[in-house]
Amino acid sequence: MEGVDHLADERNKAQFDVDDMKIVWAGSRHAYELSDRISRLVASDPEFKKDHVTSLGRKELFKNTLRKAAHGWKRINELGLNEEEALKLRTFMDQPSFTDLHWGMFVPAIKGQGTDEQQQQWLPLANKMQIIGCYAQTELGHGSNVQGLETTATFDVKTDEFVLNSPTLTSSKWWPGGLGKISTHAVVYARLIINDKDYGVHGFIAQLRSLDDHLPLPGITIGDIGMKFGSAAYNSMDNGLLRFDHVRIPRNQMLMRVSQVTREGKYVHSSVPRQLVYGTMVYVRQIIVFDASVALSRAVCIATRYSAVRRQFGSQNGSPETQVIDYKTQQARLFPLLASAYAFRFAGEWLKWLYTDVMERLQAKDFSTLPEAHACTAGLKSLTTSVAADGIEECRKLCGGHGYLCSSGLPELFAVYIPACTYEGDNVVLLLQVARYLMKAISQLNSGNKPVGTTAYLGRAEQLMQYHSDVLRAEDWLKPNVVVEAFEARAARMSMACAQNLSKFNNPEDGFQELSADLIEAATAHCQLIVVSKFIEKLQQDIPGKGVKQQLQVLCSIYALFLLHKHIGDFLSTDCITPKQGSLANEQLRSLYSQIRPNAIALVDAFNHTDHYLGSILGRYDGNVYPKLYEAAWKDPLNDTVIPDGFHQYVQPLLKQQLRNARL
Amino acid sequence: MEGVDHLADERNKAQFDVDDMKIVWAGSRHAYELSDRISRLVASDPEFKKDHVTSLGRKELFKNTLRKAAHGWKRINELGLNEEEALKLRTFMDQPSFTDLHWGMFVPAIKGQGTDEQQQQWLPLANKMQIIGCYAQTELGHGSNVQGLETTATFDVKTDEFVLNSPTLTSSKWWPGGLGKISTHAVVYARLIINDKDYGVHGFIAQLRSLDDHLPLPGITIGDIGMKFGSAAYNSMDNGLLRFDHVRIPRNQMLMRVSQVTREGKYVHSSVPRQLVYGTMVYVRQIIVFDASVALSRAVCIATRYSAVRRQFGSQNGSPETQVIDYKTQQARLFPLLASAYAFRFAGEWLKWLYTDVMERLQAKDFSTLPEAHACTAGLKSLTTSVAADGIEECRKLCGGHGYLCSSGLPELFAVYIPACTYEGDNVVLLLQVARYLMKAISQLNSGNKPVGTTAYLGRAEQLMQYHSDVLRAEDWLKPNVVVEAFEARAARMSMACAQNLSKFNNPEDGFQELSADLIEAATAHCQLIVVSKFIEKLQQDIPGKGVKQQLQVLCSIYALFLLHKHIGDFLSTDCITPKQGSLANEQLRSLYSQIRPNAIALVDAFNHTDHYLGSILGRYDGNVYPKLYEAAWKDPLNDTVIPDGFHQYVQPLLKQQLRNARL
Ligand SMILES: Cc1cc2nc3c(=O)[nH]c(=O)nc-3n(C[C@H](O)[C@H](O)[C@H](O)COP(=O)(O)OP(=O)(O)OC[C@H]3O[C@@H](n4cnc5c(N)ncnc54)[C@H](O)[C@@H]3O)c2cc1C
Ligand SMILES: Cc1cc2nc3c(=O)[nH]c(=O)nc-3n(C[C@H](O)[C@H](O)[C@H](O)COP(=O)(O)OP(=O)(O)OC[C@H]3O[C@@H](n4cnc5c(N)ncnc54)[C@H](O)[C@@H]3O)c2cc1C
Ligand SMILES: [Ca+2]
Repeated sequence: MEGVDHLADERNKAQFDVDDMKIVWAGSRHAYELSDRISRLVASDPEFKKDHVTSLGRKELFKNTLRKAAHGWKRINELGLNEEEALKLRTFMDQPSFTDLHWGMFVPAIKGQGTDEQQQQWLPLANKMQIIGCYAQTELGHGSNVQGLETTATFDVKTDEFVLNSPTLTSSKWWPGGLGKISTHAVVYARLIINDKDYGVHGFIAQLRSLDDHLPLPGITIGDIGMKFGSAAYNSMDNGLLRFDHVRIPRNQMLMRVSQVTREGKYVHSSVPRQLVYGTMVYVRQIIVFDASVALSRAVCIATRYSAVRRQFGSQNGSPETQVIDYKTQQARLFPLLASAYAFRFAGEWLKWLYTDVMERLQAKDFSTLPEAHACTAGLKSLTTSVAADGIEECRKLCGGHGYLCSSGLPELFAVYIPACTYEGDNVVLLLQVARYLMKAISQLNSGNKPVGTTAYLGRAEQLMQYHSDVLRAEDWLKPNVVVEAFEARAARMSMACAQNLSKFNNPEDGFQELSADLIEAATAHCQLIVVSKFIEKLQQDIPGKGVKQQLQVLCSIYALFLLHKHIGDFLSTDCITPKQGSLANEQLRSLYSQIRPNAIALVDAFNHTDHYLGSILGRYDGNVYPKLYEAAWKDPLNDTVIPDGFHQYVQPLLKQQLRNARL
Repeated sequence: MEGVDHLADERNKAQFDVDDMKIVWAGSRHAYELSDRISRLVASDPEFKKDHVTSLGRKELFKNTLRKAAHGWKRINELGLNEEEALKLRTFMDQPSFTDLHWGMFVPAIKGQGTDEQQQQWLPLANKMQIIGCYAQTELGHGSNVQGLETTATFDVKTDEFVLNSPTLTSSKWWPGGLGKISTHAVVYARLIINDKDYGVHGFIAQLRSLDDHLPLPGITIGDIGMKFGSAAYNSMDNGLLRFDHVRIPRNQMLMRVSQVTREGKYVHSSVPRQLVYGTMVYVRQIIVFDASVALSRAVCIATRYSAVRRQFGSQNGSPETQVIDYKTQQARLFPLLASAYAFRFAGEWLKWLYTDVMERLQAKDFSTLPEAHACTAGLKSLTTSVAADGIEECRKLCGGHGYLCSSGLPELFAVYIPACTYEGDNVVLLLQVARYLMKAISQLNSGNKPVGTTAYLGRAEQLMQYHSDVLRAEDWLKPNVVVEAFEARAARMSMACAQNLSKFNNPEDGFQELSADLIEAATAHCQLIVVSKFIEKLQQDIPGKGVKQQLQVLCSIYALFLLHKHIGDFLSTDCITPKQGSLANEQLRSLYSQIRPNAIALVDAFNHTDHYLGSILGRYDGNVYPKLYEAAWKDPLNDTVIPDGFHQYVQPLLKQQLRNARL
């Protein structure tokens, strides 16, 4: 059966050109070719094999990761890969390591917050990995509340140095990736103290370990914070702890692009706008939204292919059983996630555009769109990562018992993905920020401050308060404007209701606290509207390729109507639609599931994931699931011997009834 | 800070007697004392320490488990524990092992399906663990569809034997716990074939390994199926694969309580009613519901205590920051789970009663309530395990970044718990069974077949179709009958709507398939009604203890109104309540959160979990979180050395810029 495509029939059913869809998914031909080339490069290199990592103990796993990181760096140099290609190579290695933080946080922090001289001093070293850096912000006691960090950096005017110190146990740095065992340097966030005055949290470059013998420098305590979720997952990363006991660094190691400390100990601002940080946030969160679509697409790809391979029940007179993908319950769980993967992809694409737009405006000192851009990226980060995390687990359940095996790929995908709901802003804290922005936008409606960008619809609030859906037949729900209006009306009314309830409180802050659960629901409605709208806008563009646009239209409708069905309570209680219209949407949804069904396998093929990257036997491209599951099982270390370690000592005495006398 | 109770203030706030609540939670004073005694016994025995298991490789973990299983058995014998106590001891060891299947499936299968002689032959051996057994039903190709199993047991009249065989790859047994490395025997499910006629799936006792040298017997292939979800979690269990190549077993090793094969090869039924299997199912699923409440209670206990310790934001003029448990969003996520833990506890208690009732009726050959009991236990199994699984992950997220550490206890709790959604019936497949039962009950309404037990309300369907909630003020939602009626009306209308839609199909089976997603929603509404009703019934009993009943009433209202809010779309679209009434419920819910807040810590203390059983630094009884997190980190194997294994080989060359020349 080797070499046979067990899913060929499924692939033949597709009503669109999968190669064209691959380009759409990737974003451009260039992006497609890049990913395709590098993912194959990694997949074909035996050094990057990852099937065995889940059964390793912590130390072996860590060593395995160091080996791969070194090999990756070697290949990057040998092949002369550029930055974009190198990033892809690290992505497709698919094993978190210190290099992620070095390239993803340390280097960008210096680029974003360092002066030109600082960049010239540090970047050449970092770019050649002659130093390895991490990003040390979070402490044992403070994560979400960055302004509450306790580490201090006290300026000593006598020596022209900062003294880094960890005054309490809770001020220990805790979580930074790459810190525990590998980093030689860190960007450390600490309270700047000059003459007993606290200037708040600033970034500093600190050397942590000797470049000679790698031992922690005097006054510095470092260690790994221990095991995390999953078998391998993030355990290949040395998330670390760090304490400073009055460690001195030169003054020029404070990151001084935005504010500086002079030789005399004066605190001054440069001409660089502080709003720059928003730009960085938009950038980072745009990547996170993009990653959410990737993570979800991997899980959906696995569950979809396996659902076409797996048959259970329904055999009649010896005919094969039903493919579980043909059960409507399976479809109703799976296809909305497929649609979400595409929806988030386009939301990510749009955020990329937004980032460019924001940066251009920043150059022109136009800060007007920044708060809206910030709220919108915060919201999309929260929405997409939450859905992706839950979606991966749902995909695992969709695979029945076999989804629980590491060889399904899904347990590790979940374990490695879920922190995205927590880092770069806890998802609930972020939604509260969105809600705050929405309430502010509404409070300013009468002052002529017109809401912009994704909140523009609030400018039509009065109109939207009058809205009643005019859907008469199920097909009406396929019209983009019908859908957008319903989502706008729902979001606007939920926000308006919150604003009205808030106005009943004497102290607005008390009101905000008291009503925060409702505010989060309003913020969610707002974010869902953004994703739906951006998907629809995407479809207003030219999209080449046989049948490609049609499939995307079906997916877009599935995404929107699934949300409408799931949150039907919102739509009904705000009186945007009637129960009858709700059940027409549900009816339409069922018919959309039937339409997408024959295209499902090709739609996940369009993600172009290699078998190596998927790391899943259930999700194999060729569908040759059972023989490969069987083969893989034998490779578990427990199968190295017929009689397991410990049997003679601990089990045989039981069987031989010598237990009472045995010394255990 | 050692010895200090950091949560003392919280405990002092409680408005009820926590010791009395402990009895209510446990179900009886006896149950409380038993759990309390055995859990402390385990917690105080250093052999049962479990803090390090997550960093072990597969083999060491497995050996560690064998050691604990042996030590457990030793203690059980030394202390002369009875069956109930021994079971508790294994539970509190809290590490899945072959013994779970031996005692939980193998022995009960023989008791339930074996004849008296078979029980006499096998149980004494099994009870002394002179043989160790597992339960081998699922195959690579079939899990949910048990009738589709492919393993054959062909009767050979010449030798008076059955020939066990695995005719295809997919017929390989796959998943049975304890099979992979340890079991000497198994109850094997296989198609009974006599004279080429297929009599369907039956159970057989087969010896798998030699009692001398533990090697697999001739014709038998066995191995472990490999790594599963999580660091340790279920990887301490040797879920296994098994193939038979024409293996012969004597005829008397078919489990013959219900049907027999005679010496001549005739297939006959005994007088024992086949419905007995339903009794076993009710029994097993009642335990699963009970376990769901335990698993959820552990997660809730951790998240609640940590939410009281954790402070973030809100410091004013140097005052301490806000405890995150005081944020309304945190409460709206946490307290419904706390209420659910209690709700499921009482549902489990009621199922225990139902089991007794069913068994008594079976003795009296009254099979009338069986289908309803079966549907109801299937539904509650599905509902409670799904909520517990999702709830554990939500509790992890409620702990922010630190919840991602294994030392929080939550990752492993999740990983070890989630298969409960899949084994003993996939949760979606089970809900479809419930839906089928509901549709049947409705179709028989006119034929005078009155629905019984938990479906009795359907007998009042006509009335319920007229229902409109008469809630006027938020407090009205505290009245039990107001709540029950709303839930009954919602469930009845959703089922009736499905039945009506089904009647439009020519082929009812096609209709069932097509509408199955809606049917699942109706089944869920039915199951939620059961849990709400049983909670309310519980509160109609006498419940002693200062303030105990009051707290339970608050929890009951939280449970019901949280569900109402979450599924408000159901209530609105079926026109049971108005949007205004929905928002009154939400208002009431907020006020209930405030009422429960001061009692939250005491309510999780009432679970009486030891720190050992919780296995969580975040959930420590004394709230001494930060110093203990810090201490625990140092114990990770990666911290054994300052310079990690692999550093000199793989990282130093990078730092020293010798990469291009280095041989990696
Ligand atoms: C895998 C991983 C990698 C990481 N890598 C790094 C790294 O490289 N460098 C680094 O510096 N950090 C890192 N972190 C830390 C991460 O940034 C923090 O964990 C994150 O910011 C969340 O903060 P917290 O843990 O303090 O959560 P908390 O704020 O303690 O959250 C606990 C609970 O309180 C709630 N809550 C908090 N504030 C409010 C509020 N105002 N209103 C309502 N609810 C509230 C939250 O919603 C949550 O439910 C990493 C974390 C993880 C898990
Ligand atoms: C940790 C663990 C321990 C186990 N221990 C044992 C053991 O000791 N002994 C043993 O014999 N087995 C054991 N099992 C196996 C377990 O019983 C099966 O995995 C379980 O019955 C689910 O069956 P499945 O894997 O075939 O799922 P599948 O039926 O393949 O499910 C795949 C998907 O198809 C869907 N589906 C299937 N049928 C239908 C339908 N008719 N309509 C709609 N949707 C459908 C499901 O909802 C699911 O989404 C264990 C499993 C696990 C994970
Ligand atoms: Ca491990």
